[in-house]
Amino acid sequence: MKQSLTPNFITKDFPKDEESYNARILVRAGFVQKVMAGAYAYLPLGLLVLRRIEGIIRKHMDKLGREIIMPQLHPKDSWETTGRWDSLDVLFKVISNDKKEYALGPTHEEIVVPIAQKAIFSYRDLPMALYQIQTKFRDEPRAKSGLLRGREFIMKDLYSFHTDQDDLKAYYQRVKEVYHDMFKEMGLDTKLVAASGGTFSKFSHEFQVLTETGEDTIVICPSCGFAQNKEINDAKEGDICPECGKKIEIKKASEVGNIFELNRKYSDPFNLTYKDNNGVEQPVYMGCYGVGVSRLMGVVAELFHDNKGLIWPASIAPFDVHLLELFGSDEKENKEVTKQAEKVYNALQENNISVLFDDRRESSPGEKFSEADLVGIPVRLVVSKKTGDKAEYKRRGEEKASLMSVEEIIKMITTS
Amino acid sequence: MKQSLTPNFITKDFPKDEESYNARILVRAGFVQKVMAGAYAYLPLGLLVLRRIEGIIRKHMDKLGREIIMPQLHPKDSWETTGRWDSLDVLFKVISNDKKEYALGPTHEEIVVPIAQKAIFSYRDLPMALYQIQTKFRDEPRAKSGLLRGREFIMKDLYSFHTDQDDLKAYYQRVKEVYHDMFKEMGLDTKLVAASGGTFSKFSHEFQVLTETGEDTIVICPSCGFAQNKEINDAKEGDICPECGKKIEIKKASEVGNIFELNRKYSDPFNLTYKDNNGVEQPVYMGCYGVGVSRLMGVVAELFHDNKGLIWPASIAPFDVHLLELFGSDEKENKEVTKQAEKVYNALQENNISVLFDDRRESSPGEKFSEADLVGIPVRLVVSKKTGDKAEYKRRGEEKASLMSVEEIIKMITTS
Repeated sequence: MKQSLTPNFITKDFPKDEESYNARILVRAGFVQKVMAGAYAYLPLGLLVLRRIEGIIRKHMDKLGREIIMPQLHPKDSWETTGRWDSLDVLFKVISNDKKEYALGPTHEEIVVPIAQKAIFSYRDLPMALYQIQTKFRDEPRAKSGLLRGREFIMKDLYSFHTDQDDLKAYYQRVKEVYHDMFKEMGLDTKLVAASGGTFSKFSHEFQVLTETGEDTIVICPSCGFAQNKEINDAKEGDICPECGKKIEIKKASEVGNIFELNRKYSDPFNLTYKDNNGVEQPVYMGCYGVGVSRLMGVVAELFHDNKGLIWPASIAPFDVHLLELFGSDEKENKEVTKQAEKVYNALQENNISVLFDDRRESSPGEKFSEADLVGIPVRLVVSKKTGDKAEYKRRGEEKASLMSVEEIIKMITTS
Repeated sequence: MKQSLTPNFITKDFPKDEESYNARILVRAGFVQKVMAGAYAYLPLGLLVLRRIEGIIRKHMDKLGREIIMPQLHPKDSWETTGRWDSLDVLFKVISNDKKEYALGPTHEEIVVPIAQKAIFSYRDLPMALYQIQTKFRDEPRAKSGLLRGREFIMKDLYSFHTDQDDLKAYYQRVKEVYHDMFKEMGLDTKLVAASGGTFSKFSHEFQVLTETGEDTIVICPSCGFAQNKEINDAKEGDICPECGKKIEIKKASEVGNIFELNRKYSDPFNLTYKDNNGVEQPVYMGCYGVGVSRLMGVVAELFHDNKGLIWPASIAPFDVHLLELFGSDEKENKEVTKQAEKVYNALQENNISVLFDDRRESSPGEKFSEADLVGIPVRLVVSKKTGDKAEYKRRGEEKASLMSVEEIIKMITTS
């Protein structure tokens, strides 16, 4: 993507109306723009990151179920069936011109159960699992954490349906493993943390990433891995781990996923049953499993940066390479630079390496360098009058730069 | 995708609560499910069709602008700025717990202008164009046309920004050409029809597909291509074409896209300006260009079917091939059939041919044949005890079936 042909949303200063680091840096580096508190637009760079996060999630979820898309506008009666129309205080409500009421979906149990019901008749139809990657809404009283807590946000939500609790428990264990691998692929080391179930279930598990700015506090044992959210365990730093007897630690963390054994909480109100192999109607057991898609972009920004800007993990970076073309005052030399930069740009793309190409004439080398650090693409290449028929290769976050041929660069990127 | 591992949303009968053909067939064939009037869930097959439609749209739109995603929840003040908070009767309104009011986006001029404003300073930043593929909402009094007129639906909306009206007009012409190619790639022959501009502009152009069940009526000249929506031209069948003097016809049609010269209608209220090359602030000229993404799925269903079911154009079919494995009463023969069917399934996938594989044991050959006709995938392959080391190849909508080797089948599909 040539920057000369792309709107430039990078700003000189940090936004004044943002408190959280993730929003400050993502707005400044041109990934998102705040439309109002808790609602962001994803600009070209931000959308590319979202798409890569979604791609990794989809790859892993396809091992667990089938993708669908459910509506965001929900009928009131489904939410009354479960009693959450009145009890869920973050539920946004909509009234139409003809005075009908709807909910804006913050989660989809009320929608997915009647959908699944049309394909569940006998034990042969189970287990079944459906997931979606979709925009959700919460009437958040405070929306000051940037992408970490929005009024509108993107989530992946998976729902599973089972003949009995044992089958649900086995599936729940499998989701834990898949989630761990999925987050690892995004460069995240997640801790499995026991927590309360909120309005969903008695207990749940959260996938937490340790971050100094995290909004959660967790009680964690570095020896045996025991971990609970502070909301269900009031331990203090240095207390004894109930599992192994060693000392526990208290840490700040950010949640990126959560999983719930719903059991019959949502299947019973909708009378979701199946015929067992004796022809007797039995209740269906359910689980639900969330991932904060847009939230992940915020968490990664909180985790991976330095004082110059973002440092994206390669797997979810908006581009593989940021190619900078540096111009001087000699137009003849500039022509040679352009020729070599275009050559590098084309060679990389032919090798399926995605490139953000800073070919802008009006920007100085200093501006290009500092913008590249701000945007945080993993590999920076520089072509200038000094680099001749090669290019200067540098990894974001490292100091060492080396002059390399295009072939060496392609080999370096495709094998790393 | 193996059907034995996929929820089956196909129903024996047409739904009783749907009036339109597109909803009746798409629900029955398991592509969508109605959650409430005007809001559908896209099931695995339906989502695959949507993704292919979106893929074609994205490929063509990338020639015209950059993709972003804007919020669906909009601040009231932006809609007050343009006066549409009160004047647009289909605007869904949301009130939060703390009594703040929001709009649910039916279109995004009010959002895209302030976003673009942050990247438009001088004439060097223009032209600029931003597009998104996203869910939109309309408070429709009647929502009885299935996917053709929803309360919640998916649209592609492109917005362009220009230094002057000439530049806008040139871009508008280019969009016309790209739209024509884009719809053609989906198997649709679109007519460019002049229409009123609604709340957007004085005039507009619609891309209409002739369909007997279309909700629009157009005045069209088969000789010279002159075409106007009946809303701006009250001609009757057989009247004289104002362009060429031949006889005009009156036809039913369905709209799949529309384009508007907005000029300064939305840039002026937000004071969207740029500095010209003399450093003088000048107003920005705009255009907007829509495509109904989920509506396209409905229009295609209205257009391409027979009395047995759907007949998808190859470019947007959920799968390239529907492979049916037929079982008999002899288990030894069945084993051989499974071996050959799996071989065909794997060989096709290795050649990047997507396959829906009806490997279900409990379905009879008759059920498999009629479901395949209902679902409407372009190529049907049958493996049975009669087909030996080959498979029976048949195109949906044609009668002729031929026995072919896997190699011949792959060649047939990849070169057609």
